[in-house]
Amino acid sequence: MTALYDVAAIGNAIVDVIAPAEDGFLHAEGLTKGSMQLIDEAQGVDLYSRMAPGMETSGGSAGNTIAGIASLGGRAAYMGKVASDELGDVFAHDLKAIGVHFETPALTGGPATARCLVNVTPDGQRTMCTYLGASTELTADDVPTELIEQSAIVYLEGYLFDPSEARRAFAKAAGLAHAAGRMIAITLSDAFVVERHRGELLGFIKDQADLVFANEAEVKALFETDDFDLAAAQLGAMTQVCAITRGEQGSLILAGEQSHRIAADPVDKVVDTTGAGDQYAAGFMFGLARGLNFDVCGQLGSMAAAEVISHYGPRPAVSLKDMAVARGLIR
Amino acid sequence: MTALYDVAAIGNAIVDVIAPAEDGFLHAEGLTKGSMQLIDEAQGVDLYSRMAPGMETSGGSAGNTIAGIASLGGRAAYMGKVASDELGDVFAHDLKAIGVHFETPALTGGPATARCLVNVTPDGQRTMCTYLGASTELTADDVPTELIEQSAIVYLEGYLFDPSEARRAFAKAAGLAHAAGRMIAITLSDAFVVERHRGELLGFIKDQADLVFANEAEVKALFETDDFDLAAAQLGAMTQVCAITRGEQGSLILAGEQSHRIAADPVDKVVDTTGAGDQYAAGFMFGLARGLNFDVCGQLGSMAAAEVISHYGPRPAVSLKDMAVARGLIR
Repeated sequence: MTALYDVAAIGNAIVDVIAPAEDGFLHAEGLTKGSMQLIDEAQGVDLYSRMAPGMETSGGSAGNTIAGIASLGGRAAYMGKVASDELGDVFAHDLKAIGVHFETPALTGGPATARCLVNVTPDGQRTMCTYLGASTELTADDVPTELIEQSAIVYLEGYLFDPSEARRAFAKAAGLAHAAGRMIAITLSDAFVVERHRGELLGFIKDQADLVFANEAEVKALFETDDFDLAAAQLGAMTQVCAITRGEQGSLILAGEQSHRIAADPVDKVVDTTGAGDQYAAGFMFGLARGLNFDVCGQLGSMAAAEVISHYGPRPAVSLKDMAVARGLIR
Repeated sequence: MTALYDVAAIGNAIVDVIAPAEDGFLHAEGLTKGSMQLIDEAQGVDLYSRMAPGMETSGGSAGNTIAGIASLGGRAAYMGKVASDELGDVFAHDLKAIGVHFETPALTGGPATARCLVNVTPDGQRTMCTYLGASTELTADDVPTELIEQSAIVYLEGYLFDPSEARRAFAKAAGLAHAAGRMIAITLSDAFVVERHRGELLGFIKDQADLVFANEAEVKALFETDDFDLAAAQLGAMTQVCAITRGEQGSLILAGEQSHRIAADPVDKVVDTTGAGDQYAAGFMFGLARGLNFDVCGQLGSMAAAEVISHYGPRPAVSLKDMAVARGLIR
């Protein structure tokens, strides 16, 4: 059966609050630069009170990826839980406005829509503190069978390993996808997520995932080694396809006997690295869903990542489809 | 008595929803480019559903101006009504985070925090549709006597002539300010506001205002003429000081017998003109409150306006104080 959607993603539905910060601010707040940590509502209020004025944009790792798929001209669907509040409305609007199928019912009477407090230092690095709020209330009931069956790739966010209900949603999606002959992709999301859930992640990668995204820190954390080549080889041996991003060093794609090194795209000025990995995954999966070869998939990933780090905000600011056509990567 | 605040402003407390739009979108929606129109909640929901994904930032004309005052290193206070909701929290945060005194109690049980749907066309022009929500619930009780008495300049937004309760707040502020020997400033805000309230605005300018800000379209609308020089002369004759902005042509300052033409600052690329007039007013009033001469006041205005139109969003992205010091405008 031809897939109705190129990619359907399940993720934590989060609104980003992005503000500039100095390195000293991170230090004073005890935050590790470049990391994502979970905070509760009170901690969120406390930290926000000391942050600079910011801007609010829809975020969430898989939400950003799915926005990238749509920007590439792909058919995209998203499953994630917002609350029935103002930020939830913003999140839903921003997906629907770009043609993403998003019908997960909003939560009423529970916690507020999740938000991620993003402090961006002058080097463009983002340090994130996430209050999960309503996003943790996603359940297996929020994963419609037809939607999974109709999607070429079902993409799952490693962050969702934190809330346990969502893990059941994962399991349901994985089972349905495989039964329908679809591909399951997962991103490791964050080195601390890997630390917290190494066993479960390894199990999921071995038993369920066909495609794994990771960055260098995450793959090293997964195999508890500082040797990148060793870690990459172990991940490659464990899954059909993996794509490992290495910042300025580009990415490495391993698929059975194949190995592809893809260069990063040059960027004049890195403004905000938020969403780089998310957009790499978007480019790669769009290519894969359309049957392009791994080199082109990787180049689409590099292109999409370079676009998003050249401006504030975690989603494409221009049409990635136009960019990709101009470069001859797609028609 | 030395003033505790350089400027205290009263305005519609609004969160901006900023999204890119093509000219064809404005046409299809029946919107006049560059204008601000009032919409009700249902119209807001309807228009928002068709807009592109956006970003949310604190806005409101006087709120933007007061953020500019703070960015220049000035002591600033703000009075305006948000609701006790998420966007209201964002608005309050963004002012307090830059040191602005903002203690107007949030509205509970009424309409939501006001929002302005801003469609930015590729030429950088912004077309605004505003749902006033909670902002219209500002009353004279929200204008604390001591705050007005302690502020060198009390700045009022022409937009507040729309909701009648706020006009009473104006009258109270003007009365208190003059009794305390303070200066009353007003911006005409928008040509359509002038059309709606020409009589009241003319009365207020003649009887109450010491300083008037307007752009070319507004001053022409005020005196129902296409002759800019005539309109400017009429405004100049009616008030102590007026500063009229003319986009790329800079600004004209009239004060009694004095007339000063101030050049606009060059901008590499105009991204979003939102807040240009607001920041001009910030630069000008900061200079005036600090006793600088009119030429420097105008140059501070040009500088602040040029900064804000070079990026998305209606408030300064860098320290205006550092910019002004680097140019030798202030120490």
